[in-house]
Amino acid sequence: MDGVLADIELQMIYHYKQRYGVQLTREDIQGLAHEQAFPLDAEKNSILYSPGFFRTAPVMEGAVEAVRELMEHFNVYIVSAAVEFPLSLHEKLEWLNEHFPFIHWRNITFCGDKSIVHTDYLIDDYCKNLNYCPGKPIMFTAHHNIHETGHIRVNSWKEVLDFFSKEIQTLTAEELN
Amino acid sequence: MDGVLADIELQMIYHYKQRYGVQLTREDIQGLAHEQAFPLDAEKNSILYSPGFFRTAPVMEGAVEAVRELMEHFNVYIVSAAVEFPLSLHEKLEWLNEHFPFIHWRNITFCGDKSIVHTDYLIDDYCKNLNYCPGKPIMFTAHHNIHETGHIRVNSWKEVLDFFSKEIQTLTAEELN
Repeated sequence: MDGVLADIELQMIYHYKQRYGVQLTREDIQGLAHEQAFPLDAEKNSILYSPGFFRTAPVMEGAVEAVRELMEHFNVYIVSAAVEFPLSLHEKLEWLNEHFPFIHWRNITFCGDKSIVHTDYLIDDYCKNLNYCPGKPIMFTAHHNIHETGHIRVNSWKEVLDFFSKEIQTLTAEELN
Repeated sequence: MDGVLADIELQMIYHYKQRYGVQLTREDIQGLAHEQAFPLDAEKNSILYSPGFFRTAPVMEGAVEAVRELMEHFNVYIVSAAVEFPLSLHEKLEWLNEHFPFIHWRNITFCGDKSIVHTDYLIDDYCKNLNYCPGKPIMFTAHHNIHETGHIRVNSWKEVLDFFSKEIQTLTAEELN
């Protein structure tokens, strides 16, 4: 979810300004890890723990339409590393129900780490998650991962759809939804 | 969690009496599906949706000690089908923190269905979950599953430990934790 469906980068920039009075731009934080990008908040990651943070995050551009399109061909699961932030569990579920009401609860997973979640594809912004995927891991570009080179990379949901439209050509009817 | 770590059978019997005035025993509901066992509550499963239900469930006998012992040899994950009951997410996390404080948040997963969760073993009380396990699924006896015959069965946490003490003999040092 974070950094893929939800634009956590924009949400962090907004809350960083609100709390610390420092206006950052997306350009300012390119290539920086989370703690480097938002150093005043690094000690306790307090913004991430604040009520409403995940509930009010903006949707990543093109995500709703793209997920809906992927669901025509694939069984799409939402897998979010949410257990670290207890407040986020309910907020993330409400957020999904608001913005992605067409995703069934059966297809939503909130986990600690993602090591036991095995899927044919995984779209994620962190190597620590992608490295567990036994299928094809796909890195979604975020400020903190632009120097990573080990995975297929997509920069937008348009590029996700381009990737899967090619992928569909290689799959059998049985492999597709 | 439910029916394995948490004694949901006892919790349902208690709440059924509180809400409908009907006192059931464990013997009364042997062999019955949830809706058959608690017919007055069947229409909306309203007890399961009521605040505090999961938070106050009793711990299954022997579960705490057994999980602690298993963790000496295995990487133990808690996987709970919780997303169907939105209130339960936070309650289940608090419940785990109270009764199993030694389980790290990284090892907790709340899911819709368990189809994408792949582990070497799965202890569960439902075929609908066990059938997805690519490793060795283990059925934990509950009133609703006593007629199922397709899986290895354990009747208590003592039997879980007996099973794994034999299993450990067959595993290499590398396969163990």
